[in-house]
Amino acid sequence: MTTPPRTAAATDLAAILPELIEFLRIPSVSTLPAHKADVQRAAEWVAAYLHRSGLDHVAVLPTTGHPLVVADWLHAPGQPTVLIYGHYDVQPADPLDAWHSPPFEPTVRDGNIYARGAADDKGQVYIHLRAVAGLLAAGGLPVNVRFLIEGEEEVGGAGIEAYVRANPAALACDTIVISDTPMFAPGTPTITTGLRGAVFTELTVQTGRQDVHSGLYGGAAPNAINILCGIIAGLTDAAGRVTLPGYYDAVRPIPAAERASWAALPFDPEAYRAAEVGAPALLPDSEYSILERTWGRPTFDVNGIEGGYSGAGSKAIIPARASAKLSFRLVPDQDPDAVIAALKARVAELCPPTATVQWGAAHGAAAVLLPTDSPAMQAAQAALQETFGRPAVLTRMGGSIPIVSLFQSELHAPCIMLGFGLPDDNLHAPNEKMHLANITAGITAMRAFLRHLAR
Amino acid sequence: MTTPPRTAAATDLAAILPELIEFLRIPSVSTLPAHKADVQRAAEWVAAYLHRSGLDHVAVLPTTGHPLVVADWLHAPGQPTVLIYGHYDVQPADPLDAWHSPPFEPTVRDGNIYARGAADDKGQVYIHLRAVAGLLAAGGLPVNVRFLIEGEEEVGGAGIEAYVRANPAALACDTIVISDTPMFAPGTPTITTGLRGAVFTELTVQTGRQDVHSGLYGGAAPNAINILCGIIAGLTDAAGRVTLPGYYDAVRPIPAAERASWAALPFDPEAYRAAEVGAPALLPDSEYSILERTWGRPTFDVNGIEGGYSGAGSKAIIPARASAKLSFRLVPDQDPDAVIAALKARVAELCPPTATVQWGAAHGAAAVLLPTDSPAMQAAQAALQETFGRPAVLTRMGGSIPIVSLFQSELHAPCIMLGFGLPDDNLHAPNEKMHLANITAGITAMRAFLRHLAR
Repeated sequence: MTTPPRTAAATDLAAILPELIEFLRIPSVSTLPAHKADVQRAAEWVAAYLHRSGLDHVAVLPTTGHPLVVADWLHAPGQPTVLIYGHYDVQPADPLDAWHSPPFEPTVRDGNIYARGAADDKGQVYIHLRAVAGLLAAGGLPVNVRFLIEGEEEVGGAGIEAYVRANPAALACDTIVISDTPMFAPGTPTITTGLRGAVFTELTVQTGRQDVHSGLYGGAAPNAINILCGIIAGLTDAAGRVTLPGYYDAVRPIPAAERASWAALPFDPEAYRAAEVGAPALLPDSEYSILERTWGRPTFDVNGIEGGYSGAGSKAIIPARASAKLSFRLVPDQDPDAVIAALKARVAELCPPTATVQWGAAHGAAAVLLPTDSPAMQAAQAALQETFGRPAVLTRMGGSIPIVSLFQSELHAPCIMLGFGLPDDNLHAPNEKMHLANITAGITAMRAFLRHLAR
Repeated sequence: MTTPPRTAAATDLAAILPELIEFLRIPSVSTLPAHKADVQRAAEWVAAYLHRSGLDHVAVLPTTGHPLVVADWLHAPGQPTVLIYGHYDVQPADPLDAWHSPPFEPTVRDGNIYARGAADDKGQVYIHLRAVAGLLAAGGLPVNVRFLIEGEEEVGGAGIEAYVRANPAALACDTIVISDTPMFAPGTPTITTGLRGAVFTELTVQTGRQDVHSGLYGGAAPNAINILCGIIAGLTDAAGRVTLPGYYDAVRPIPAAERASWAALPFDPEAYRAAEVGAPALLPDSEYSILERTWGRPTFDVNGIEGGYSGAGSKAIIPARASAKLSFRLVPDQDPDAVIAALKARVAELCPPTATVQWGAAHGAAAVLLPTDSPAMQAAQAALQETFGRPAVLTRMGGSIPIVSLFQSELHAPCIMLGFGLPDDNLHAPNEKMHLANITAGITAMRAFLRHLAR
């Protein structure tokens, strides 16, 4: 690339914006059955784009859930093969009234595009689609490429898991590129070398067949909400540590060298608190820094709770049933199945004889640490240096990308997590956005990466 | 009355059922703004009934909320005046899918009528309407009667409170009759001599401007649900005792004679647990019996909770906001305002610096104990003996009827709480019902009460 990044961005934007808006406009919310047809439509949009760009074997493959989109271009004999993974599904958009523009009417403001999925992950999938399309339009790719784009990343990814386990040959590759992570800071190219794992499940407390009057029965009838709150409170101690038996036993300490490199990153806890989290204070922890806690330490968070009456005014009931969505973020070497078992054991201890508990389906993934010394990693570092004019920083990420551990175990190829989002992109929250300059820089970087990867 | 109750009931039912069904069909849910017109319609139905029956000065009086219905018949000079109070508003009907027949399509099954408001309180208001109409149709009333029927009992009763305070002369009376309480058991006529008070309010915990991704921010960002659950759990101790400062200081011990009379009532805790509450176990308490706990001891119950994501599947967020509807049942001599102040102080203690709390409007009423030796009480006991063939039992009730204390303080007349509901009527719950034989017996008893009250 001889054009400086800034000019390339300016040149590309007018061409790419209509395409990107068309993609983001599709409300492909994978967790909501009402959006099933929209999710299908997003898959077809990706497939049509790949087909139009000149990829071979483009297909929308049905799964037990939402479809996979696959395609390949294998006309560079003797060159490595890159598998490009991403997801076209998005999180629900609620609460809708907190959005400044509607989540599925992509809107450009201040150099950003605002829409559900702008950064997670449609905007980043689009970077790959456009980079490959551009190279093909200019004559061809320097290496072989496969695409594998799923529609269930936000709901556990059962479809892609079955497909990858059943079809490793169709996905044979030398390296895997995933862009579903943020840059550490604006203008700071970033490669993510580790991900936390996670466990998600749902706990329901039941105390009776039906709600009863809180005046007539109060003092005798157990209350499902009071009990659920007691159980949730009992899952952490006064210091905020998780009380599951053995929860911290398998936690691998963060290596001293990695702690030191993270400590050298430009990071302002007060700005992070005020600008990103917006809380009056961050969680206290005397032992670990913010980056250590979010990248290398395990957590417990309730993602949702409901029970009893939530309409206007009051309702004098003792609720018979209350539910909460519980989640844990895991680090190496915690085992998701062991955490689920420990959770159930601990809740059985905490639940009084006045109630019974029921468990929803649990899904989880182990944490991942990636190699930092592969040829693909060197190509990625060269591409980022060239595009951004500075070396990439190596970070971990607190989120989970369950597919990464599956790729490692089934395809035996190292992943490169090369992300172009920003820390304040509001992932999973209202007003999700992506910085447009990062999309154009991402396209430039991906073209450079494929070139550097060629032998 | 020379007709035995059973025959009277059989005779009346065909005549009254169409009227009762028409009244119950109106979805007069006072807490939901969407039902405002329905609440008005229920008021107009009551007024039309009274007018048709021959009452004077029938009026639907606007308030700041839902209207009052008033009427009188003062043509018995030298005789006492009875004020008949009731409420035509009802609780919300949700969860709708738990009803075996729709809440506002009154349905007769097994000698009961099923509908929201069947027992609380439209069915019991109807007893009074019909008893007075019957006497008027037969020539006149033996005493003077005033009606005061409100539409805000389930939402705090601001309108009637203002009216009673401003118009004591228009409500001048010698006794007040209220039928909004249950019989102790089927076939057991019951007069309620005490009510618990209550405090209702709503607590919101806020930790940030908006939800953040639980992977990226987990371990650093505070979670509004985790914190709310911790606060709620902290409002009781391990034994279930309320931890508000001074909460038990003002509690008047239940007199030994009353404890003894309650202990003599036929009551089977195991049947109560299984048939009414439906829980695997009742709340434990080594010191107080079930009746003592529900009639004479204070409580804390959460009536509803919400926060984060409650749709299908999971959502990886740390919620920035969570709310719960909190309530306390109070006994003599606890002060509602003092309890609200203690609650706010305790929550301020329990809330960590990572969150802020906001309070919704609080409303409350003190507990009430009624005189048991008035002429009206003697008339009520005679009427019940005559109708049911056995003496009435004297009980208290765990619920609150805030208007009772207002009547005591503003109108200086004793209340008689003469209820015809049953303990398993599912008040405030799905499948609310009223036993039809209790409606007809109630009409008979009320006619007898007015006759016995005459000098």
